[in-house]
Amino acid sequence: MSWEQKLNKYISIISKELEKHLDITYAKNDKLIKAMKYSIMAGGKRLRPILAIASYEIFDTNIEKVLPYACAIEMIHTYSLIHDDLPAMDDDVYRRGKLTNHIVFGEGVAILAGDGLLNYAFEIMINETLKHKNMRPYIDSMNVIAKASGINGMIGGQVVDIESNNQDMDAETLDYIHLNKTAALIIAPLKVGAIIAGADENQINDMEHIGRSLGLAFQIRDDILDIIGDKSKLGKDIGSDEDQSKFTYPSLYGMEKSINKVKDLTYQAQKRLEPYGEKAKFLYELTEYLIGREI
Amino acid sequence: MSWEQKLNKYISIISKELEKHLDITYAKNDKLIKAMKYSIMAGGKRLRPILAIASYEIFDTNIEKVLPYACAIEMIHTYSLIHDDLPAMDDDVYRRGKLTNHIVFGEGVAILAGDGLLNYAFEIMINETLKHKNMRPYIDSMNVIAKASGINGMIGGQVVDIESNNQDMDAETLDYIHLNKTAALIIAPLKVGAIIAGADENQINDMEHIGRSLGLAFQIRDDILDIIGDKSKLGKDIGSDEDQSKFTYPSLYGMEKSINKVKDLTYQAQKRLEPYGEKAKFLYELTEYLIGREI
Repeated sequence: MSWEQKLNKYISIISKELEKHLDITYAKNDKLIKAMKYSIMAGGKRLRPILAIASYEIFDTNIEKVLPYACAIEMIHTYSLIHDDLPAMDDDVYRRGKLTNHIVFGEGVAILAGDGLLNYAFEIMINETLKHKNMRPYIDSMNVIAKASGINGMIGGQVVDIESNNQDMDAETLDYIHLNKTAALIIAPLKVGAIIAGADENQINDMEHIGRSLGLAFQIRDDILDIIGDKSKLGKDIGSDEDQSKFTYPSLYGMEKSINKVKDLTYQAQKRLEPYGEKAKFLYELTEYLIGREI
Repeated sequence: MSWEQKLNKYISIISKELEKHLDITYAKNDKLIKAMKYSIMAGGKRLRPILAIASYEIFDTNIEKVLPYACAIEMIHTYSLIHDDLPAMDDDVYRRGKLTNHIVFGEGVAILAGDGLLNYAFEIMINETLKHKNMRPYIDSMNVIAKASGINGMIGGQVVDIESNNQDMDAETLDYIHLNKTAALIIAPLKVGAIIAGADENQINDMEHIGRSLGLAFQIRDDILDIIGDKSKLGKDIGSDEDQSKFTYPSLYGMEKSINKVKDLTYQAQKRLEPYGEKAKFLYELTEYLIGREI
């Protein structure tokens, strides 16, 4: 199977699993479930759950075991996008080429759909934990995810991001935002994949380092694409960061330095992956793909 | 110690514990932490965490053990109030006699402060779980809370509530809202108190039944107070439900029937408590207090 075929297989497995989780018998709250499904099934890259699988398969073959956690992370990522897009934050009309959640369902429902996805992510992880006799790796994983998505992780990064618009920003603040708003939820699936597969502490630590490099590279690439990207591919307005005179890596360091930084960070991740050899091949090629991605 | 003294002692224990949890060393996300603290320390009744303690002490004396869960529930309750108050939902300016979170910190930060409190509640419960060798009761408790606050609990009730404004409503829909939006997070602390104290299945089941009666009684009393209450005591605008031509128990069944329903539901809860005798005295008197409460 080629790398692309494997990627598509994993995307399909994840999408089916997400759909299964959202196949909920509902009574009167149908609009809420519809709004949650709308954003979850809007066809994202599924990068975060794929990272969980890619990390897991370095250490074990039974990837089914990591799926509940992969889905929980994707739900948390999706809720953060729904809330990010709200008028009180980025005020976006399009996301992934589709109208944003609050445009379709209204702001009130969109806020609750986000809340619902965050809460449901924990419900899924708790359910999974309760199935196992040795609960420890499952709670450890939930712990990693909760911290990554919390006030000293993703939410912390987001608040600094929205509060520093149109203000003077410095390199340190930009790093804080990138590391927390984006990298935290790239690191988490890599760590969780290793933890659930039974990897040892050094290996989990390797995954954390790889995640940190990839997470920063991913965010810088995102900022680059926002300037040079193709709107029809990105599915959102190009230059929307510039419109709001937003501080980004390219605006601070210039385009050439930004492109080199992405390459450098990716190289660091790849170097740390090399000792894992053939088993880490999928993840290795994923890092190559992320450098050159256009969406 | 009189009942009131005990109540005040418990309120003080809970408030201190909440303050301790929010005494976080922060870097750049200080506005987020401040916004979270603002609403948590705004001086609510602390009813939900007190119910967790009241249930716990029926079965065990070491109430410290239930505090992390009592705090987690209060954080979830508080996040739901912050999001409820937003312009896209109830659009309230005052809550507990103070300006609402979004009026003070802005809508974006208020949304994130709510997200932060929900996420942090799970972080606290996960941390607590990891301290124990037998993790089962702690995960079971987290499970009860996650379900109560989720899409088939509190969030489900809230979405039906905001979506049914100015529409035709019926008794069944009103019951759905009361049971999910309010009663779910009254039932949960009563169950969790029993679970963590090591109560058996029948006892946990009793707590669930008591919570259901009290939760409905509490919500109907709330609707009554919104019509006849004293603004200076309630700390919010009287008649705000009527202004939005909102469907409530009194508007559907009339005032007399509503008052009798509160009494009847409270009596049901008290009857189920009687076999627990002296140990359930605090909770019993709490149910008496809830019938007559003016705030």
